[in-house]
Amino acid sequence: MPETIAFVGVGRMGANMARRLKDCGHTIAAVYDVHAPSASSLAAELDARHATTLAEVTASAGIIFTVVTDDTAQLGIFKPPSAGDSLLIGAQGRTFVNCATLTPKIHIETALRAHEAGAACLEACMASSIPQARNGTLYLMCAGERTTFDRLEPVLRDLSNALRYIGPAGQAAQVKALVNMVMNINTAALAEGLGLGHALGLDLNMLREVFAQTGANSQVLKTDGEDMQNRAHDCYFSSAHAAKDSSIAWALGAEAGLSLPLAAATKLQYDRLVALGRGDLDKSAVAELTFPGRLN
Amino acid sequence: MPETIAFVGVGRMGANMARRLKDCGHTIAAVYDVHAPSASSLAAELDARHATTLAEVTASAGIIFTVVTDDTAQLGIFKPPSAGDSLLIGAQGRTFVNCATLTPKIHIETALRAHEAGAACLEACMASSIPQARNGTLYLMCAGERTTFDRLEPVLRDLSNALRYIGPAGQAAQVKALVNMVMNINTAALAEGLGLGHALGLDLNMLREVFAQTGANSQVLKTDGEDMQNRAHDCYFSSAHAAKDSSIAWALGAEAGLSLPLAAATKLQYDRLVALGRGDLDKSAVAELTFPGRLN
Repeated sequence: MPETIAFVGVGRMGANMARRLKDCGHTIAAVYDVHAPSASSLAAELDARHATTLAEVTASAGIIFTVVTDDTAQLGIFKPPSAGDSLLIGAQGRTFVNCATLTPKIHIETALRAHEAGAACLEACMASSIPQARNGTLYLMCAGERTTFDRLEPVLRDLSNALRYIGPAGQAAQVKALVNMVMNINTAALAEGLGLGHALGLDLNMLREVFAQTGANSQVLKTDGEDMQNRAHDCYFSSAHAAKDSSIAWALGAEAGLSLPLAAATKLQYDRLVALGRGDLDKSAVAELTFPGRLN
Repeated sequence: MPETIAFVGVGRMGANMARRLKDCGHTIAAVYDVHAPSASSLAAELDARHATTLAEVTASAGIIFTVVTDDTAQLGIFKPPSAGDSLLIGAQGRTFVNCATLTPKIHIETALRAHEAGAACLEACMASSIPQARNGTLYLMCAGERTTFDRLEPVLRDLSNALRYIGPAGQAAQVKALVNMVMNINTAALAEGLGLGHALGLDLNMLREVFAQTGANSQVLKTDGEDMQNRAHDCYFSSAHAAKDSSIAWALGAEAGLSLPLAAATKLQYDRLVALGRGDLDKSAVAELTFPGRLN
């Protein structure tokens, strides 16, 4: 019999992953969120228990997905059992699947704490967004023990049509940080190109077409180019997340003794958007900083 | 009868464009270069005259392609006839096709001077490199009078399988500057991503594959990623050119009152490569600055 599943952190990503697994026939035993109403309504929708403590989550399911916001939240849900409510209470034999974008060393620390509690642990880093979570087409990069990955593969394949095992704990988070670092730089670069093109009076439809046919082409041109032109910044991947991810990568570089001036400049652009109160807009909103007459 | 053609500036780009046009049945009447041996050997190869003055070039052909290194060189070959040897001497009825990557306003100034001398003028900006010049597959963006473009289209089609008319004088150079600005930023971004990945001990073949499948994908990943990994920096598009192009775009931004921090950071990276004596390497060599243990 397949193991039952629980979710900790049911914002838009977590909730849609839970919906998808339910659609695929899995039992969602319990859901938990620091914002209780989110957990409560999703619990009702999925016929799951609304867990109000972390220990209750662990007691309810064999596989526990966590999708929290940041490093602090992650260490909070995995705090030592002696320090209060924690997913590690009664965790013997459980498997944790950690999906948040975190500093790689936090994934390593999580894995250590889980192993000490007798649980297995996998990091599952997503390079996709909400629609992909809902329809099971996440790009999912996993790290941790290979045996844990192999055992969970059937469940993970229900979430992902592009699943890959990267290596030991921390490495999927490293790759994710690098993907987002390069993506965010390319996004900020595109914003500069289109913003300057607009300032010069060029036809931006023509300019995007030329970019697409030349060395300026990129994935973000496809996903964000038109949105930058039309100021359509409904959120798929928020500027606040881009700021956080840029910081993770930039800090990894600093620890490695590398100077990464473009990562630094991109981090500052997203920090500036957040400081201007626009962190909830999509990452394409970095163009608001580079088009004349917008936020500059 | 088709007009005869001459070339001013027969470095690798100019020489290969001349070879291609010769292959297509055009008569190359004359070639000129400030480096006389380059012109002399190409003249022998193409059965053309080795012109030793600019006035001689203009006297020899109906269509004169110019492919010089920079703004100063361009203004030098188009100096007022009263100031000495110039392509404008006896230029009535000639057509100039200017292919160098220049500041847009220099293209505008060239067009004004040519028109005063009774000549037609087209800017033809290339977003491609040497192999494409040789086999007639340049990406060619043209600006100037539409009638001149229409008249020259058959010749231009022998050089390009992707020919487009952009608009009035200066606009093709603006688009070219923007293409190269975004391309160079994306290149420097990729160098940071792969350099940091290497510092973290990740498998770079895996990392490039993940980049290609995610939001980090870009045209420069295809053209430069493996070269960065393998330090294969044979020159297709030199770092010195990237430094120059980055400066053009960055200056356009400054004139427009825009802050372009990524363009600025990229300009500084390429300036640094040039300062380190590596300007003759391909633009992929920006990775020498970001991989641990190379130039840092």
